[in-house]
Amino acid sequence: MTYSIVGMGAIGGFYGGRLAHAGRTVRFLSHSDYEYVLQHGLTVDSCDGSFHLDHIDAYGAAQDMPKSDVVIVGLKTVKNHDVLPQLLRPIVDDNTVVVLIQNGIGLEEDLQQLFPGLSIVAGLAFICSAKVSPGRINHQCYGSINLGNYSCPQDKFQLLLQDLQSAGLQVAEVPYLEARWKKAVWNMPFNGMTVALNTSTDKLLKTPATRQLIYDQMMEVIGAANALGVDTITREFADKMMQMTDAMVPYSPSMKLDFDYHRPMEIEYLYTRPIAEAKKVGFEMPKLAMLEAELRFISEH
Amino acid sequence: MTYSIVGMGAIGGFYGGRLAHAGRTVRFLSHSDYEYVLQHGLTVDSCDGSFHLDHIDAYGAAQDMPKSDVVIVGLKTVKNHDVLPQLLRPIVDDNTVVVLIQNGIGLEEDLQQLFPGLSIVAGLAFICSAKVSPGRINHQCYGSINLGNYSCPQDKFQLLLQDLQSAGLQVAEVPYLEARWKKAVWNMPFNGMTVALNTSTDKLLKTPATRQLIYDQMMEVIGAANALGVDTITREFADKMMQMTDAMVPYSPSMKLDFDYHRPMEIEYLYTRPIAEAKKVGFEMPKLAMLEAELRFISEH
Repeated sequence: MTYSIVGMGAIGGFYGGRLAHAGRTVRFLSHSDYEYVLQHGLTVDSCDGSFHLDHIDAYGAAQDMPKSDVVIVGLKTVKNHDVLPQLLRPIVDDNTVVVLIQNGIGLEEDLQQLFPGLSIVAGLAFICSAKVSPGRINHQCYGSINLGNYSCPQDKFQLLLQDLQSAGLQVAEVPYLEARWKKAVWNMPFNGMTVALNTSTDKLLKTPATRQLIYDQMMEVIGAANALGVDTITREFADKMMQMTDAMVPYSPSMKLDFDYHRPMEIEYLYTRPIAEAKKVGFEMPKLAMLEAELRFISEH
Repeated sequence: MTYSIVGMGAIGGFYGGRLAHAGRTVRFLSHSDYEYVLQHGLTVDSCDGSFHLDHIDAYGAAQDMPKSDVVIVGLKTVKNHDVLPQLLRPIVDDNTVVVLIQNGIGLEEDLQQLFPGLSIVAGLAFICSAKVSPGRINHQCYGSINLGNYSCPQDKFQLLLQDLQSAGLQVAEVPYLEARWKKAVWNMPFNGMTVALNTSTDKLLKTPATRQLIYDQMMEVIGAANALGVDTITREFADKMMQMTDAMVPYSPSMKLDFDYHRPMEIEYLYTRPIAEAKKVGFEMPKLAMLEAELRFISEH
């Protein structure tokens, strides 16, 4: 199988690098780092073993890329409306599988509307990694991906799963909608609250008032998922997420890093869309709707 | 009628000063400013005409004060639990009327529990004033007081009303519970939100997301008031408060000033108590409960 990687950040750089390192044909599309990586290649400093690729097949424009079997998208969702469709248009056809390794709710639906014949897969990465400079990824820990099949023929989906596994990646299949909402149970409270209160996960959990608030917000997400027919996420999952976060080192979620580095925040797909999806079936998420409003204020001031 | 003023801040200093200036017997109780005002008196710089009192009847300890007919409390409510009862004990008896010119819900109930025979009146001041230094009050505008009778015999209440009016103050009688909750409609959204987002009233209203949030929070207060039997506050009152605030100069509510000057914030009576009162009758205030949690986090970090 051949791969195209859209976005050479923490996600695209790491997984694309791993696939290329395992001998797969991998084409990298990069806007800002194109010149650099063409000259210097790609370095992945990793807890699982570091490596350097002297030469990578890099492209500065989607128009110049050959078509691949699989397109892995590692862009921030803030680019999904204005940038992503243009990048995909020249490199996908009805035989392409697109894997969106992105956070949020509603991504696959929106992309499918623009590309009705496309095979789309949701990728949920559990990974701590960062792009530290052009062509250099620092992978601190974890790295597994759960794939949820949104609109891919099952045989093709299984081939992809096997190819990723045989390339040494830790990949598992999960039910699409359940996986997206499970991730939202952690993402929606912690991403926004660390920004709204300019703090880290541990401080939120050590303060009784915000510990309860985080839990209430998790229960809003679970209530929304249940209302939308995903009945496999229960209160026990919130308890588990609380315990897991208690056990983590003080952590800044991706939105907090975006905020700290003055990058656009992923408010649309992390908040607006899930809140709107729940509202469609009559379920309100008042505390997360308030958080969304606070984030919008913060992003505009 | 004789008056004792507890607290020589923006409220006690202004109204006590006005009463003394009008010739009333006024005793001032002050902890931090006692020495200074005994020597230098009290100055009120006011839009309604400035004045200076060379000598005021100041006390550094409640034990040293004679009893007065009326005690006006102008302390911040953060002192109501630990400080106020000790200050009142020596200066009140069952003939005393205590006027609480303070913000929040539940103040009168709590004080009455400690002083069962006391006549208590709620004072709702509409005033922009500040203590700029010991013995010096800057009164910028407004100044009317609405008095809500909580537990004062009606004849005594009317005498108080008349005496304050004849001293030149703009005073009116209002229904107790309605008045307290009406003030909360503005106070609960704006006090906390200006702190949570470190901003001023105008910016909150000019940003669509927070404008809607402020309105939603006002509707939570009105819903709570309605649930508690105060059915005279309707959606039109929220609309009026929005328009009024649109017309105001950019404004920092008292909690924002407390936050800016690193003073304790009045979270208890402005948030915890009204939210708890509403919950008792089964009414939830989710967005204001979230704001309370954020304020608790901010006050602890």
